[in-house]
Amino acid sequence: MLLYTLYLIAITAEAMSGALVGMRRGMDRFGLCLVGTATALGGGTVRDVLLGNYPLTWISHSNYVFITIGAALLAATLAPWLRHLQGLFVAVDALGLIAFTIIGCNVGLKLGVSTPIVVLAGAITGVCGGMLRDLLCNEIPLVLRQDLYASIALAAGGLYLLLLHWGVTADTASVAVLVSGFATRMLAVRFHWQLKVYSSADAGGAH
Amino acid sequence: MLLYTLYLIAITAEAMSGALVGMRRGMDRFGLCLVGTATALGGGTVRDVLLGNYPLTWISHSNYVFITIGAALLAATLAPWLRHLQGLFVAVDALGLIAFTIIGCNVGLKLGVSTPIVVLAGAITGVCGGMLRDLLCNEIPLVLRQDLYASIALAAGGLYLLLLHWGVTADTASVAVLVSGFATRMLAVRFHWQLKVYSSADAGGAH
Amino acid sequence: MLLYTLYLIAITAEAMSGALVGMRRGMDRFGLCLVGTATALGGGTVRDVLLGNYPLTWISHSNYVFITIGAALLAATLAPWLRHLQGLFVAVDALGLIAFTIIGCNVGLKLGVSTPIVVLAGAITGVCGGMLRDLLCNEIPLVLRQDLYASIALAAGGLYLLLLHWGVTADTASVAVLVSGFATRMLAVRFHWQLKVYSSADAGGAH
Repeated sequence: MLLYTLYLIAITAEAMSGALVGMRRGMDRFGLCLVGTATALGGGTVRDVLLGNYPLTWISHSNYVFITIGAALLAATLAPWLRHLQGLFVAVDALGLIAFTIIGCNVGLKLGVSTPIVVLAGAITGVCGGMLRDLLCNEIPLVLRQDLYASIALAAGGLYLLLLHWGVTADTASVAVLVSGFATRMLAVRFHWQLKVYSSADAGGAH
Repeated sequence: MLLYTLYLIAITAEAMSGALVGMRRGMDRFGLCLVGTATALGGGTVRDVLLGNYPLTWISHSNYVFITIGAALLAATLAPWLRHLQGLFVAVDALGLIAFTIIGCNVGLKLGVSTPIVVLAGAITGVCGGMLRDLLCNEIPLVLRQDLYASIALAAGGLYLLLLHWGVTADTASVAVLVSGFATRMLAVRFHWQLKVYSSADAGGAH
Repeated sequence: MLLYTLYLIAITAEAMSGALVGMRRGMDRFGLCLVGTATALGGGTVRDVLLGNYPLTWISHSNYVFITIGAALLAATLAPWLRHLQGLFVAVDALGLIAFTIIGCNVGLKLGVSTPIVVLAGAITGVCGGMLRDLLCNEIPLVLRQDLYASIALAAGGLYLLLLHWGVTADTASVAVLVSGFATRMLAVRFHWQLKVYSSADAGGAH
């Protein structure tokens, strides 16, 4: 129930974020809706296609598509005001990342795949929406270059499984992972924590 | 039968259009064949992967792949002359868009998914081929930025379902949608109808 | 057994090659791991998603993911030295291309698809990893533009099927295709054999 509410908030926020990136690349209204929807539902779609978990969520629950289209159009209308809410977006996006990751882990657990794949299923759900957004907008996916984002998804998935393994109930584990994952992500944003970024000089002329 | 003929014409035209875009990006002959094939068969492939509708059309009917490869090589050979036929390409592409959309709706109906997903399945079939072409050529997909294209696919799919719902036979509905969709698309091209396109200024520094 | 050993060598080499390309595009350590893994396992994943062949290899054998992540991190650490090994990389990549192609053909044969699709399944396995790498790094896939690479995969797949059709055992056919495919690829690299590359001038203003 908690996760379901967070899921709805997260897909709304992700759809708005996708639409705002699309606006800056000169897309029309349809493009915004598509990029917003791909950002919001793309992570779960990639996960389910890789796991062969059919039917896809948004195909059996088509109302999710209407939510993301509505959110994208709303973002386009409100864009001039949304610039004052950037902090809110970052926070909702961080919550969404962790909520998506936990939901993805639960799908992996339900399908009975091995532990590393459960964690990967969670991380894929968390980060692939943003990767699709960046591919459609012809940019190198931010998640491949930027501060601790995917790493937090992987760590959150690992922690969630560890808590379940220790006998913690799914609800308690979800809340614990949400709080700690959200806090870590916000601290990473605030203090610009990031993994070592490589430059051309590091790669040399090796390949 | 009508749709099957249109399908063959449409995949030929789409494969040629993909090959011509690939030529302008400096691809070799293999690249042209692959981009042409992805443009022609990509929309149906994305639809079937999302719907879990296996086996894919071109895997059970591999002759379609030979048609698209042949069309791509033909386009490369004829390129200097094809520039005089641009109007014909636009018309065939418009017919293909509507034919693909109707075929995609029929697949959705056969699988028994909900009405909004049937319309989406149609639109995905119509537009995803061109999106794959643009991704492979490292461009922001035209369909996300340009005049009424995807919107016409959505409207055509909706009209088709409405006609079926009113008891019109599939054949009559197909012809009605083909004629009206084709006319709308040609008018949109002729008079540069388009949805509002957003610029960086609209998006502000919001995200 | 031979193919399995070659497969392990090939995914290691492909993961390192993906990581080195990612380094030159300013990715962080997570990005390198993801691009390396996508390069190594992406070809087989695309093939299996298109053929509906579930579960995917790396989902039932998650240790492959650890191998590719390890190889990507190793490449990042060793990058300054790897520039002296470029010749070795090209050779291992050529072996990997042929090994992936034979493995892909075997999957197609096992699933009982038609002959042209078996050859395509092989070529997709061989080349799609590199295409994913280039898409994630925001480049036009090299395989669409460059010297005989995909064409060799198609020819190797065709030769393999031909040998099996003539009653040659799978082991003997694999060795024969590996040796001849590897030699052709190395000669293509050495003498810059390539298919005709098209330029904007060829395409004219056709589309």
